[in-house]
Amino acid sequence: MRILLLNICFVIQSVTPQTNKNVLTLISDLFDNYSPKVRPTVIQDDPIQLDVSFYLSSVNEVSEVNEKLVTTGFLMLSWTDELLRWTPSDYNNTDTIFVPQNEIWKPDLVLKNGFKKFEELGGSFYYLQINHEGSVDWLPFNVFESRCSMDITNFPFDTQKCDIKFVTWSHFADQIEITKSTKGIQFYEFEANGVWDIIDTSSDIKKEDRESEVKFTIKLRRKSQYFILNIILPIVFLGFLNMLVFVIPVDAGEKMSFCVTVFLAFAVFLTIISTLLPTSSDNTPIIAMYLIVQLVYGVIALVITAFQLRLHHRDEEEEISKYWVMVVRLQRKMRCKKARVTEIVVSELTKKGSLDNEQQNNCRAQEKYEWKHVASTIDFFAFWSFFISNIVITVSMFSASSSQ
Amino acid sequence: MRILLLNICFVIQSVTPQTNKNVLTLISDLFDNYSPKVRPTVIQDDPIQLDVSFYLSSVNEVSEVNEKLVTTGFLMLSWTDELLRWTPSDYNNTDTIFVPQNEIWKPDLVLKNGFKKFEELGGSFYYLQINHEGSVDWLPFNVFESRCSMDITNFPFDTQKCDIKFVTWSHFADQIEITKSTKGIQFYEFEANGVWDIIDTSSDIKKEDRESEVKFTIKLRRKSQYFILNIILPIVFLGFLNMLVFVIPVDAGEKMSFCVTVFLAFAVFLTIISTLLPTSSDNTPIIAMYLIVQLVYGVIALVITAFQLRLHHRDEEEEISKYWVMVVRLQRKMRCKKARVTEIVVSELTKKGSLDNEQQNNCRAQEKYEWKHVASTIDFFAFWSFFISNIVITVSMFSASSSQ
Amino acid sequence: MRILLLNICFVIQSVTPQTNKNVLTLISDLFDNYSPKVRPTVIQDDPIQLDVSFYLSSVNEVSEVNEKLVTTGFLMLSWTDELLRWTPSDYNNTDTIFVPQNEIWKPDLVLKNGFKKFEELGGSFYYLQINHEGSVDWLPFNVFESRCSMDITNFPFDTQKCDIKFVTWSHFADQIEITKSTKGIQFYEFEANGVWDIIDTSSDIKKEDRESEVKFTIKLRRKSQYFILNIILPIVFLGFLNMLVFVIPVDAGEKMSFCVTVFLAFAVFLTIISTLLPTSSDNTPIIAMYLIVQLVYGVIALVITAFQLRLHHRDEEEEISKYWVMVVRLQRKMRCKKARVTEIVVSELTKKGSLDNEQQNNCRAQEKYEWKHVASTIDFFAFWSFFISNIVITVSMFSASSSQ
Amino acid sequence: MRILLLNICFVIQSVTPQTNKNVLTLISDLFDNYSPKVRPTVIQDDPIQLDVSFYLSSVNEVSEVNEKLVTTGFLMLSWTDELLRWTPSDYNNTDTIFVPQNEIWKPDLVLKNGFKKFEELGGSFYYLQINHEGSVDWLPFNVFESRCSMDITNFPFDTQKCDIKFVTWSHFADQIEITKSTKGIQFYEFEANGVWDIIDTSSDIKKEDRESEVKFTIKLRRKSQYFILNIILPIVFLGFLNMLVFVIPVDAGEKMSFCVTVFLAFAVFLTIISTLLPTSSDNTPIIAMYLIVQLVYGVIALVITAFQLRLHHRDEEEEISKYWVMVVRLQRKMRCKKARVTEIVVSELTKKGSLDNEQQNNCRAQEKYEWKHVASTIDFFAFWSFFISNIVITVSMFSASSSQ
Amino acid sequence: MRILLLNICFVIQSVTPQTNKNVLTLISDLFDNYSPKVRPTVIQDDPIQLDVSFYLSSVNEVSEVNEKLVTTGFLMLSWTDELLRWTPSDYNNTDTIFVPQNEIWKPDLVLKNGFKKFEELGGSFYYLQINHEGSVDWLPFNVFESRCSMDITNFPFDTQKCDIKFVTWSHFADQIEITKSTKGIQFYEFEANGVWDIIDTSSDIKKEDRESEVKFTIKLRRKSQYFILNIILPIVFLGFLNMLVFVIPVDAGEKMSFCVTVFLAFAVFLTIISTLLPTSSDNTPIIAMYLIVQLVYGVIALVITAFQLRLHHRDEEEEISKYWVMVVRLQRKMRCKKARVTEIVVSELTKKGSLDNEQQNNCRAQEKYEWKHVASTIDFFAFWSFFISNIVITVSMFSASSSQ
Repeated sequence: MRILLLNICFVIQSVTPQTNKNVLTLISDLFDNYSPKVRPTVIQDDPIQLDVSFYLSSVNEVSEVNEKLVTTGFLMLSWTDELLRWTPSDYNNTDTIFVPQNEIWKPDLVLKNGFKKFEELGGSFYYLQINHEGSVDWLPFNVFESRCSMDITNFPFDTQKCDIKFVTWSHFADQIEITKSTKGIQFYEFEANGVWDIIDTSSDIKKEDRESEVKFTIKLRRKSQYFILNIILPIVFLGFLNMLVFVIPVDAGEKMSFCVTVFLAFAVFLTIISTLLPTSSDNTPIIAMYLIVQLVYGVIALVITAFQLRLHHRDEEEEISKYWVMVVRLQRKMRCKKARVTEIVVSELTKKGSLDNEQQNNCRAQEKYEWKHVASTIDFFAFWSFFISNIVITVSMFSASSSQ
Repeated sequence: MRILLLNICFVIQSVTPQTNKNVLTLISDLFDNYSPKVRPTVIQDDPIQLDVSFYLSSVNEVSEVNEKLVTTGFLMLSWTDELLRWTPSDYNNTDTIFVPQNEIWKPDLVLKNGFKKFEELGGSFYYLQINHEGSVDWLPFNVFESRCSMDITNFPFDTQKCDIKFVTWSHFADQIEITKSTKGIQFYEFEANGVWDIIDTSSDIKKEDRESEVKFTIKLRRKSQYFILNIILPIVFLGFLNMLVFVIPVDAGEKMSFCVTVFLAFAVFLTIISTLLPTSSDNTPIIAMYLIVQLVYGVIALVITAFQLRLHHRDEEEEISKYWVMVVRLQRKMRCKKARVTEIVVSELTKKGSLDNEQQNNCRAQEKYEWKHVASTIDFFAFWSFFISNIVITVSMFSASSSQ
Repeated sequence: MRILLLNICFVIQSVTPQTNKNVLTLISDLFDNYSPKVRPTVIQDDPIQLDVSFYLSSVNEVSEVNEKLVTTGFLMLSWTDELLRWTPSDYNNTDTIFVPQNEIWKPDLVLKNGFKKFEELGGSFYYLQINHEGSVDWLPFNVFESRCSMDITNFPFDTQKCDIKFVTWSHFADQIEITKSTKGIQFYEFEANGVWDIIDTSSDIKKEDRESEVKFTIKLRRKSQYFILNIILPIVFLGFLNMLVFVIPVDAGEKMSFCVTVFLAFAVFLTIISTLLPTSSDNTPIIAMYLIVQLVYGVIALVITAFQLRLHHRDEEEEISKYWVMVVRLQRKMRCKKARVTEIVVSELTKKGSLDNEQQNNCRAQEKYEWKHVASTIDFFAFWSFFISNIVITVSMFSASSSQ
Repeated sequence: MRILLLNICFVIQSVTPQTNKNVLTLISDLFDNYSPKVRPTVIQDDPIQLDVSFYLSSVNEVSEVNEKLVTTGFLMLSWTDELLRWTPSDYNNTDTIFVPQNEIWKPDLVLKNGFKKFEELGGSFYYLQINHEGSVDWLPFNVFESRCSMDITNFPFDTQKCDIKFVTWSHFADQIEITKSTKGIQFYEFEANGVWDIIDTSSDIKKEDRESEVKFTIKLRRKSQYFILNIILPIVFLGFLNMLVFVIPVDAGEKMSFCVTVFLAFAVFLTIISTLLPTSSDNTPIIAMYLIVQLVYGVIALVITAFQLRLHHRDEEEEISKYWVMVVRLQRKMRCKKARVTEIVVSELTKKGSLDNEQQNNCRAQEKYEWKHVASTIDFFAFWSFFISNIVITVSMFSASSSQ
Repeated sequence: MRILLLNICFVIQSVTPQTNKNVLTLISDLFDNYSPKVRPTVIQDDPIQLDVSFYLSSVNEVSEVNEKLVTTGFLMLSWTDELLRWTPSDYNNTDTIFVPQNEIWKPDLVLKNGFKKFEELGGSFYYLQINHEGSVDWLPFNVFESRCSMDITNFPFDTQKCDIKFVTWSHFADQIEITKSTKGIQFYEFEANGVWDIIDTSSDIKKEDRESEVKFTIKLRRKSQYFILNIILPIVFLGFLNMLVFVIPVDAGEKMSFCVTVFLAFAVFLTIISTLLPTSSDNTPIIAMYLIVQLVYGVIALVITAFQLRLHHRDEEEEISKYWVMVVRLQRKMRCKKARVTEIVVSELTKKGSLDNEQQNNCRAQEKYEWKHVASTIDFFAFWSFFISNIVITVSMFSASSSQ
């Protein structure tokens, strides 16, 4: 069987081995009256039917600041050049030729929403394949820098949708009509981007204002792992460190210096984080708002601590106002209640009741009101209000941004 | 029915289907004696009338440091080439041709106030549409880097006005005359910039020194939200943190370390902020002045605190000068007055008068003058003078810059 | 003998000194009917056999962020142009000519997995050597920017494998067939990269989907010394510094400020290190995980210390819970045991037993339980658990990443 | 009168409206035997007389690091092409033609002291104006990157002098002779630089070694305001903050931490300032020397404070050496003298003498010598010596650099 | 005599003023049969003799990271084109013509060890001078980016040796032979680099593997002043500051915070220094090793101080181990000896002996051993061992690196 096939091949080839002479003759015949200036349709009222497909090789860069998407890939442009048709049998069965791209008419397709001056696709060294029915294939490989408006509200859990639009710049739909395209974007030697996943692609042909346009759309989702580790984690940590100031007792003499150093650490972390966060005034990322909130928390903690110190070091002679006495009393009740609850739980678990009595005495006993106690009470209330509000804010903010 | 339509089509097309041959003949006829070197007016004394419109696609970059505006868009240039006129009926009703841009004469319009070497507009692959009356349309898409002197005094509430000027470089108004333009700048596939809003555009044609120039003006307003959150807020916070040093009692032993750490935090925040602030010696932004003021406040707070500590730790044996005694007395009076006022307000609100007596005793009682009291008095006066002056400065500076 | 040789030379030269005229005639004869548009095989069904070798001059850049490899070197392309053959004797024995590259047909080989628009190899000033049998040598020197997906998990002990793929873009394997290549990559004037060692190279010819492709593979190993000194060492140091907080006695009054300053130093070191670490969400470097772990350690140390201070400064009146008493007792036992072990070792070494008694008394004597002792016990347990766990983590992480 | 003029115009125009045909004929006549390769003088021994003027549009960049000056502007080159002369009356009074720049011979003027490969001036789309006597005007607009050696000793009060030199590269003064130039540099659409003022310009034509060269010189003065606010002010502030350490009493327990934090703040400010300071080993800016001096001050302050603390905490049992006793005695005398002087001044002003006695007693009374007093004496001397020397250094350094 | 000369000149000129016609005729004669494709030797076996000289204008950049040297300058290429010879008398004594570079054959010399794609030297606007004997001069001015492997061990006292190699890429030594060159590198309009001094240059012609290559070598020495002030000084300062921790007495309560803040300052200085230090894994600069050593010192100081604090705050009840008692005793002896030595010196100088007795008593008296004394002893030993070892390391490291 294989021998048979070979034989046939041999026969065909031995009979009609088209030579370079044939090709040369064909080319000189074809290009004798050909001008690349004239749109190659016999009936000039008919538009050229252009097929445009996009094969993506890589997403090089997604810039939130410049709202820019940089992709590498190639277009496949196919059309019929009615003036480059021939009868293969006339040229020893030559049915395909390769011609440098500057020798023939080409559609002037350009990237419509680009960042740069329009450039011709391809290059002078490209060869275009033309078959005997005049159908031409052109595969210009290029880097495409397209504009893409981005919404970074949910950074780093965001999804972006970018269009890459091509249009035949100098011609109207009457002259060149983009007719077909592949469904979505094809991939060719694709290598994934380190930060973005492609979750969907689509393509769309539009005709409006006599313009014929093809639009390729890429939907990208950010891989958030890196940003969770390097932005969210440190910020959340620092936010919670802030509360520790209310754990440190006033007597340790380190409250203020601790608090301001955490504030400082916050500032230092900001120098790292601020280079990672995208900047825009259009939509503020939730994470940036969270940063501001933590900064405000830091300031409030410092203010509270400073006044607390003032109270703590007040002369014992100065009387404590009724308001403060009430606050201290409230705190003592709460602690006792909590202690009792814990106690009950513990006693139930451990089936022992011996500590019960003393603890309760403890709760009743303290009825002195000194400035010290006021300061300590502030610690108590500030800690719990910070702790609870911070957890609520943190959870609500991140669930809001990551849920989308 | 469809057959009928096809028939009609056939008939119409069979009668006047202009073919590529017609176009080829037309082109060869037109360009036979045509030289792109000669300005295409029959009467050479007449200037070419040139219409220039600007279609903006995006504002890519506004650089305060380099005083540069980078825009993307295209120009629409229209003129009449009197040598490319023909009678359509002679060429089977062909009334429009597309010609590569290098085949014909073009005006040498360039960006007058640019940052780069002059470059030819368009590219060799552009086709220009020419109708049978010789009117030519050229739509070169480009990136325009124009110079624009900026006033950043009111940063981040500033408004900038930038000109993009085009001129026909080698020709004078006698040869090429820019005649018409669209009103202002048109938008084409415009995507808004993340930092700047376009609030107005205009266009203007000028003739002076035989130069014919068209000027497009863009008025931009900065979106200040990002800068308020990332520059103004942290600075204002730090400015007010500074005052807390006067709240901390000397006995806490953390006054100095607090004060210098806030100063340090200020320095760290500066490393972030300084990369966001535009730099220029021509006009200092008010916000930069505010920074300097806050820095000075920090230094003053440190100096006061250091001397305060010295006073506080002075030997009790050293006598307190009369000056200081007076100051302490003044402070006591003010606090008592304030206390009384509060008291009255409180007593009126709560209808209780019991605390009245003791408080007043308190006010009268303290007549000892130790160095400790002097230090504490300094706290009092420094805090209130810092607090009030800082609020005044902050409000006046930001209202000044944002009002414009 | 030498004279003889010279004579022969003379004779040969005097007989056949080919002149520029001969070469000129040859060239005009050869190129008379030659068209660079036509693939130079007599039988057009035969593919051109193309040999491709790669000579590497340097590895300019390896970018983990952009997943890019930039190399400098040249390709050696060899093929047979069947239309450029001649009989040397016809042209006075001229058997080699040099022709500018744009005069003849060349294969349109391009870098398949590149970062840029396809560019023609070589340049208009290159001369190609053609011998009388039509074999052509082309040595285009270029900078190749190829995509290379990288796995930085084991940074800085990682090894990367990068492909540099070339393909004849416009032609299929039926027209141009890449046949041979050198084994691996050759080196030409190679200068080693400061960061990467080349440990292996290979080459591979593939034919699929009618595409004929040659793939050169470089295996690179990172020189880790720089990163060990500048990243790993400082991080490990800081990780261990963190534990010192449990060595400092509570009475020194510097526990908290030490701990938070170490945290701050960590943040500052991060600003240096973060610029050296490659960023990607695909695979997190183990070293980045280690950083996070150390950050968590810092936070935990702060939390423990804050609560410890609270316990330490608790009123002596408050009773110590049973749980804490047990913990303190446990610690005392462990220390005594350790002391005894040390003691025995010491006594064996020094042959003295005198201290034995007192020490043991010491161990037995302390049976008071104050809050101070609780705080001190926390120090003991926290230090040893941090110390051991940190060593385990450090050793396991680095052995994991460096072993590969 | 106007009508008359119009009439005349009409007459002239109606009689001789030169048409495109005339221009076309003229051009074809002129360029028939014209070769852009041949220098267009009839007598080849005569040099071409070339006028070169420089019109500056903006100073884009002045880089101290790279010693580079980047300017934008255009040159005006004028010469006489003796082969492009015609009698206007022969061509219907056509006396000016515009010719693309590549059609005619041009002098190969290049930027002699540039940073880049030589590039041809202008571009293929430039038209050159030629009048009937052969005089040619060429106005190539370009960005000029010229080398300029800079002396930054007096930064930020420095003045730089930069040359922009042009030379006809391939020709000697025998072939092309630069003859005239405008006086200095002209300005065209000039927009001032944000950092540099142009204080003077000049131009100079030189002939040496058969080279004909034209040199334009720009004298620039830095606008120092920005640098005063952002570099000098913070450094001076920090320098003086350093001294406060000697104001803080040892008992406050914050001396050392204050001192080292100021040192740290200095380091942080340096990270900002170091990006603003020009770097060069040729001439160190005085401001950099000042920074070093302040750094040394900081170190000395730390050393003094550390030893002072040691003295302060010395056992009271250790005897104070005679040397220290003398120093303490000296300080007491000085303070009493100062106190007395102040006192006298005060008493004279206030006409009161009552405080006199006590103060003097005070001065005499203290005759105990403890280690505490030694530490306090060190404070006194260190503060005043630092204060005075720092003022002297600051004033002398800035007056030295700003006076020039 | 001068008149005679002038006469002769006049005679010659009046007789033979060669005109543009002569030149035009000459050029058309010469280029009639000339093809730039053919190597211009009559005997094609003879190689073209090529002289290559290098004129340096500036050293633009020396990049240690990329191991790149960027220089600006021009090459002078001279060769004989045997086909461009004429008899001057035939053309009215025209003996020199200027021809655009693309009109004639040129050697394809390229930068062999470059960083970029090969580019043609010169540009299309260059004119080449050809005299009547066919000798051609070509002076292409260019920016040369050459690779240069660097050894930064002795940074900033290092010396680098860089080669700039040129080779005729497409031709072998049989076709083009580089014969002569200037001795070393010549300077043309040279402006010195701010960081590097050129201490020597040389040139060398090599023929190997049929390749003909010319190599220019530049020896550069770094100007170290800037780096001494900005890197070495701050590091040395910080290294010595570290030791001050052992001067501060434990009672001051600032030991730990001082030590860790110095460590922090070290980290901050590193952020500045790390941007100035060259990075490479091949050879670690001694200065980088010194940094690591200082970092280790900082860590050790922290560890010692932490344990010292623990000892200091130990219960007085705990007995001091014999080992510590011995250490304390040793220190006391050393201090007494030192004190005695100082005393003797002082007494000799001052001729007084009165203090002698007391001091000695002092030495003998202290025989109590408390934990405090242990801590203080650690200070003593740590300080001196740090001080001495640090001086030894600093001196040896810098002398090692600067001596070369």
